[in-house]
Amino acid sequence: MKVLILHGPNLNLLGRREPEIYGTKTLDQINEQVEALASQLGLAVDFFQSNHEGDLIDRIHQAPGVYQWIVLNPGALTHYSYALRDAVAAVGVPTIEVHLSNIQGREEFRSHSVIAPACVGQIAGFGAASYFLALYAIFERAGEA
Amino acid sequence: MKVLILHGPNLNLLGRREPEIYGTKTLDQINEQVEALASQLGLAVDFFQSNHEGDLIDRIHQAPGVYQWIVLNPGALTHYSYALRDAVAAVGVPTIEVHLSNIQGREEFRSHSVIAPACVGQIAGFGAASYFLALYAIFERAGEA
Amino acid sequence: MKVLILHGPNLNLLGRREPEIYGTKTLDQINEQVEALASQLGLAVDFFQSNHEGDLIDRIHQAPGVYQWIVLNPGALTHYSYALRDAVAAVGVPTIEVHLSNIQGREEFRSHSVIAPACVGQIAGFGAASYFLALYAIFERAGEA
Amino acid sequence: MKVLILHGPNLNLLGRREPEIYGTKTLDQINEQVEALASQLGLAVDFFQSNHEGDLIDRIHQAPGVYQWIVLNPGALTHYSYALRDAVAAVGVPTIEVHLSNIQGREEFRSHSVIAPACVGQIAGFGAASYFLALYAIFERAGEA
Amino acid sequence: MKVLILHGPNLNLLGRREPEIYGTKTLDQINEQVEALASQLGLAVDFFQSNHEGDLIDRIHQAPGVYQWIVLNPGALTHYSYALRDAVAAVGVPTIEVHLSNIQGREEFRSHSVIAPACVGQIAGFGAASYFLALYAIFERAGEA
Amino acid sequence: MKVLILHGPNLNLLGRREPEIYGTKTLDQINEQVEALASQLGLAVDFFQSNHEGDLIDRIHQAPGVYQWIVLNPGALTHYSYALRDAVAAVGVPTIEVHLSNIQGREEFRSHSVIAPACVGQIAGFGAASYFLALYAIFERAGEA
Amino acid sequence: MKVLILHGPNLNLLGRREPEIYGTKTLDQINEQVEALASQLGLAVDFFQSNHEGDLIDRIHQAPGVYQWIVLNPGALTHYSYALRDAVAAVGVPTIEVHLSNIQGREEFRSHSVIAPACVGQIAGFGAASYFLALYAIFERAGEA
Amino acid sequence: MKVLILHGPNLNLLGRREPEIYGTKTLDQINEQVEALASQLGLAVDFFQSNHEGDLIDRIHQAPGVYQWIVLNPGALTHYSYALRDAVAAVGVPTIEVHLSNIQGREEFRSHSVIAPACVGQIAGFGAASYFLALYAIFERAGEA
Amino acid sequence: MKVLILHGPNLNLLGRREPEIYGTKTLDQINEQVEALASQLGLAVDFFQSNHEGDLIDRIHQAPGVYQWIVLNPGALTHYSYALRDAVAAVGVPTIEVHLSNIQGREEFRSHSVIAPACVGQIAGFGAASYFLALYAIFERAGEA
Amino acid sequence: MKVLILHGPNLNLLGRREPEIYGTKTLDQINEQVEALASQLGLAVDFFQSNHEGDLIDRIHQAPGVYQWIVLNPGALTHYSYALRDAVAAVGVPTIEVHLSNIQGREEFRSHSVIAPACVGQIAGFGAASYFLALYAIFERAGEA
Amino acid sequence: MKVLILHGPNLNLLGRREPEIYGTKTLDQINEQVEALASQLGLAVDFFQSNHEGDLIDRIHQAPGVYQWIVLNPGALTHYSYALRDAVAAVGVPTIEVHLSNIQGREEFRSHSVIAPACVGQIAGFGAASYFLALYAIFERAGEA
Amino acid sequence: MKVLILHGPNLNLLGRREPEIYGTKTLDQINEQVEALASQLGLAVDFFQSNHEGDLIDRIHQAPGVYQWIVLNPGALTHYSYALRDAVAAVGVPTIEVHLSNIQGREEFRSHSVIAPACVGQIAGFGAASYFLALYAIFERAGEA
Repeated sequence: MKVLILHGPNLNLLGRREPEIYGTKTLDQINEQVEALASQLGLAVDFFQSNHEGDLIDRIHQAPGVYQWIVLNPGALTHYSYALRDAVAAVGVPTIEVHLSNIQGREEFRSHSVIAPACVGQIAGFGAASYFLALYAIFERAGEA
Repeated sequence: MKVLILHGPNLNLLGRREPEIYGTKTLDQINEQVEALASQLGLAVDFFQSNHEGDLIDRIHQAPGVYQWIVLNPGALTHYSYALRDAVAAVGVPTIEVHLSNIQGREEFRSHSVIAPACVGQIAGFGAASYFLALYAIFERAGEA
Repeated sequence: MKVLILHGPNLNLLGRREPEIYGTKTLDQINEQVEALASQLGLAVDFFQSNHEGDLIDRIHQAPGVYQWIVLNPGALTHYSYALRDAVAAVGVPTIEVHLSNIQGREEFRSHSVIAPACVGQIAGFGAASYFLALYAIFERAGEA
Repeated sequence: MKVLILHGPNLNLLGRREPEIYGTKTLDQINEQVEALASQLGLAVDFFQSNHEGDLIDRIHQAPGVYQWIVLNPGALTHYSYALRDAVAAVGVPTIEVHLSNIQGREEFRSHSVIAPACVGQIAGFGAASYFLALYAIFERAGEA
Repeated sequence: MKVLILHGPNLNLLGRREPEIYGTKTLDQINEQVEALASQLGLAVDFFQSNHEGDLIDRIHQAPGVYQWIVLNPGALTHYSYALRDAVAAVGVPTIEVHLSNIQGREEFRSHSVIAPACVGQIAGFGAASYFLALYAIFERAGEA
Repeated sequence: MKVLILHGPNLNLLGRREPEIYGTKTLDQINEQVEALASQLGLAVDFFQSNHEGDLIDRIHQAPGVYQWIVLNPGALTHYSYALRDAVAAVGVPTIEVHLSNIQGREEFRSHSVIAPACVGQIAGFGAASYFLALYAIFERAGEA
Repeated sequence: MKVLILHGPNLNLLGRREPEIYGTKTLDQINEQVEALASQLGLAVDFFQSNHEGDLIDRIHQAPGVYQWIVLNPGALTHYSYALRDAVAAVGVPTIEVHLSNIQGREEFRSHSVIAPACVGQIAGFGAASYFLALYAIFERAGEA
Repeated sequence: MKVLILHGPNLNLLGRREPEIYGTKTLDQINEQVEALASQLGLAVDFFQSNHEGDLIDRIHQAPGVYQWIVLNPGALTHYSYALRDAVAAVGVPTIEVHLSNIQGREEFRSHSVIAPACVGQIAGFGAASYFLALYAIFERAGEA
Repeated sequence: MKVLILHGPNLNLLGRREPEIYGTKTLDQINEQVEALASQLGLAVDFFQSNHEGDLIDRIHQAPGVYQWIVLNPGALTHYSYALRDAVAAVGVPTIEVHLSNIQGREEFRSHSVIAPACVGQIAGFGAASYFLALYAIFERAGEA
Repeated sequence: MKVLILHGPNLNLLGRREPEIYGTKTLDQINEQVEALASQLGLAVDFFQSNHEGDLIDRIHQAPGVYQWIVLNPGALTHYSYALRDAVAAVGVPTIEVHLSNIQGREEFRSHSVIAPACVGQIAGFGAASYFLALYAIFERAGEA
Repeated sequence: MKVLILHGPNLNLLGRREPEIYGTKTLDQINEQVEALASQLGLAVDFFQSNHEGDLIDRIHQAPGVYQWIVLNPGALTHYSYALRDAVAAVGVPTIEVHLSNIQGREEFRSHSVIAPACVGQIAGFGAASYFLALYAIFERAGEA
Repeated sequence: MKVLILHGPNLNLLGRREPEIYGTKTLDQINEQVEALASQLGLAVDFFQSNHEGDLIDRIHQAPGVYQWIVLNPGALTHYSYALRDAVAAVGVPTIEVHLSNIQGREEFRSHSVIAPACVGQIAGFGAASYFLALYAIFERAGEA
């Protein structure tokens, strides 16, 4: 089972970006840890980060037939990118929205996701572990099937 | 008279994207039909699709002097891309906003267009025929002049 | 195929009402042009104008079995007549909402239609040609069937 | 004791209008059943249906001195006709607002009545029986006096 | 100089309708007093009352060429009849909106007029004298010219 | 056929609580009258009053298999208890929301019910008779089946 | 009968302030014309203009026992000075709010008056004549008593 | 490490409550599965379900010194129980909010949590697995320490 | 004169709950100080704390005939418990709403009380002294009588 | 310890201003009673009333170094004077906001204070005693230090 | 070229008012620095500070014919003084709005200026240098002319 | 000291885009003038324009260690690009938001910036000079250090 891990705008800065909110791990370190866990769970993962809404949409479009799941951290696009939402809804690949921080406990505008309605579910607030939990979720669902 | 047909995010998926809403024709099939009608009406058409807001803006910027009309389906950018609106307003090429689905009959957020105020008019709800109607509209206007 | 063309409040004043917004053609002139186009497209059309919400509803109620399509310009009733919306929804005759002006580019209250959700689609901003486009839309749909 | 039963816009279509929401009985059938119950309860009833706000207001104005109660189903006028509300408040004849469907469980705009504040009470969601309940309510009140 | 005095819904009930708000004079008594004042000021007046939005619009449409001014008390239509507003804007006859009661000191919904933006001005709160003041206003304007 | 009558917070105070709004009958008197009517209609009724949201939910949970209908006056919980709404929706026992007073004619916050969308219908404004009407409604429905 | 005419902020600039909105008469010219009309109507008038909310309140406080009426043009204080509203309500001298321009036809914020609910009525849109009408209103009321 | 699992209102009905939304497992079945996973992860778990806001608060108050983590599914209390939020904030025991369904993809009112700001994070949309993921999250955090 | 002091949800945690907001005194310490002051002022006081909305309502219902005043700190129920508001309004015992913290200077949702309109007044921001001030208020009122 | 008592707009009218809301005592009588209580509590008080926002700000600016506390009744400035709020925040003298009436139980606009967030706390609804309670509050705080 | 520098409410406290937000320079020090820069740029400057809205309006009224530019820091009046806005619009002297702090990065209410629409532009967030930039702006404009 | 000047969407059209709003200078001309001024002030500047949100974010990410300041004109992205805001906040390079036009005096949606809270300050309304002022601001800050 293959999983596409998508990181949205500014996530490439992890580790040096407001570490009191986003933690001190770099994106590469998180990706390594995610990969390690994935391999334990028998999942294959690919990673893609972009600061471009359009690139993220393009990658989502290529997912059907290749990936069975998408794990998507849309960054700040969470709050306005209806185009990303439509991409998720369009491809029909089950998608999990993840956030490093607890978005409901920050500025008002961060508490609302325009993308979540097109997703299976949402995981927020666990730092890098938000991605791990998404893998566990996929693993659980696979076990159910 | 030359017309630029712009398709926004996710429209490349037509035919396999939620067909109960967007129909079963692919974008290529629609483009072919649009081209056929255009040639009947004595109009030349060029097509461009992108999932990137910036690419759409770039194409709009190149329109003056080349195209006399733009037909724009902004996809979900309809609901937040003030940059696209400003591009339309800036180039001064008359633009018709089209939508495949009846956007006022779906989710609340789809009923509002931030781009329409900069356009000549809006056509929504006729599937591929929304594009055809835009061509007829251009044809009518040409006839008036 | 028969089409009922309904003109709402104040449309009888066309030609002398704010011509910079609504154009200089009178309603009779528009109706003539609509009729001419209809006959080219093999469609029969009847016209009805009223400033009375109730009269428009009554006419819509008589449509089933007589007309296969309704083209409705609700005028300012667009923005509050839920009764007209319910009439459209009730009779089950497919209806196209048309507007002469680009209602999304004028006063805030004009950008919202309470009737559009019960219609097939909406065409706005092309002056008299908005009606022509509605006929083309019916013609296209007929061609598909 | 005489009761005026007023049916607002589109209620003349009952039986053929969206039967999954409004039921399969025609307005005549409902009126007959209402009349039968009224006569059991010792009440005289008159019926009036109109798609014209003004006609409903005119009828309400003629009520004082003739009818002791009004049962009013304002249809979609419920949501915007402040004129109907003022008519009810002006004549001083106690009025019961009824709805066939459970208006609070449908579209957002249907959950608010601008007329109810001028009425004695509201009954919604029981199909034709909403009218029957209104008669029972009048009967109960009469019994109290 | 001829003036059309238009009374909207429920104003025919004046005198018996909530007299603590609207006073004890009947509409006929008010019209007589208005006529008396008009003749003093050298103005000719015609009166029209209707509970039908459409009738009021029809009368406004007939005003150009006959009346130099309209005095309009739209009753509760004040708060939602965009069709009446468009009628006033369309005919180009200067119109004064009047209200018997001080609409800004009552229920929230009464403080907003959708018609006033199309009028010359608004007079509210003086009972029957609101109409008298409208005549004085016309008289003053005439004196200026 | 068994009916559970549920009275929410503060209804135990009936008769001594703001009698100009809620009337002078005590809850026991109302219950007796409800029981009398129920027995006439061939219905069995049980009563339960609580000021505790949780107790009301618990009782609703026990209803399936015992009661065929619930009559629920949620008191002020009407305006915020989504938990009560979910309980009604969860058990699948058809429920009628009743109110003694005309909640749409009082403070703004009372005009909205978060529970009504999960109910069959709503009856408000008839004092104790609101409960009687709910019984009649059940009786009518039973007669239809 | 004595009348206090109060002019709020920026009204001292009349004649040179945005004449397309406020006209070309200076405040002194308006005051002279008001005085002339007052004397015709047998009314005594005093004038006071200030750009200070506090001065206007102080003057209103001194009105009882001296003036039988106040004519108040609050200028832009109309839209936020609850203190001025409370002053009007506190002194119990009947007050008429006047505006030179049609405040409901300009920017959104100008359509709402926080002071009007404490006044007898409002006159807006007649230029200097708005003050004249206020005098006529006082004269009419005096005639009624 | 001990974990308190709190289930809010209506969760006792799992399995028979709207299974298309909440799944077919009963609460006991979920608890068993949670317990099994907990024991694999070396965590001790206690369970508590209540339909009473107060009971849930009481249990949260008893948590400090006994439990190192709380997993809280507040049910519909999510959307209004500021008291539950304050309880979570007050006891200082890190808390994870979980939901079976994807609350951002349902009715508007379900998309907002008043409790989440006081929690570490939120997991929604994975059915029973939402609880499993919460345990994994605790396990990850423990591993980090 | 007897006074009932009611403490709402989470107030039992005082002293260990967010002391930077709520202070370091426990509820028992506050109660002792309140009792001491009450006895100085010749007032008898009873205390009751609960995390259950229903228990607080029950206690309020028992107040008439026993207590002449209620001092109510509703905790977070302040912001949504219309049931508590109705209880206060229903029993007719004058009630003072108190808060330890300055609720208008914290999160937006804390600035609004749904209960205050049914109370005599509100005291907020003085820590334990908010209760003392309520006693002084009662003492003053008693002195006035 | 010195305390500055500030009375805002219209408070000079106390005793003759809407006595059913504000009581029958004059401001001088209240000041005398406040002074008497202050002297009992060992506090020195100065009084200042103005209808001018600027004067109140000026007085607040002079407070540091002279007064240890400010008691501020901002009158209607409560609802819009951000300048007064900034003055309170700027001088750093602890300030108590008082109101004679229960501002949360009156018109909607009175329930919100833009000044309270810069104050220590708020006391409202006790008539003249609101000021007394403020003195007790200062006395209590002094006792704590 | 003469420039009037206007400082609104509370700016006289600069240096001792919340220095972490507004800096440690006093208003006199800022004025001296502004004057020094002005003289370098060949501009004459006058300064005026007031806590009184009316005084600021009076000074603006005296500007035409004396000053070619106004630099206005309205302090907290920024957020509600429509009277100040009208004064700026009325006198026709080009005006630059300045703020010491970055008003869009503070409390919500500070992000909106009711005065800016009547100004040439806005400069915010540079401490005392906001005034310097305003002078540079005037100097640049002068250079263009 | 190096400064990165970023121009957002549509700014490449300057000179031919709505010159009545944005002026007649091209972007190259502005850049030349900015460079000239920068060199006078001892600042080095680099320029970058893009219609792609992602490109702008990428450039901001490369700024730390290269540039000491960013001058950002986000164009219409100002109103919705939370991703751009997060980029500014993430890199920690002080950023000045500039606009050619006075954004608070145009359409409502232009008055709000989602990016400004992450910036040092905002300069708007001075045409090309808005950029010059930003350089002066940097120069002033440098002088302070």
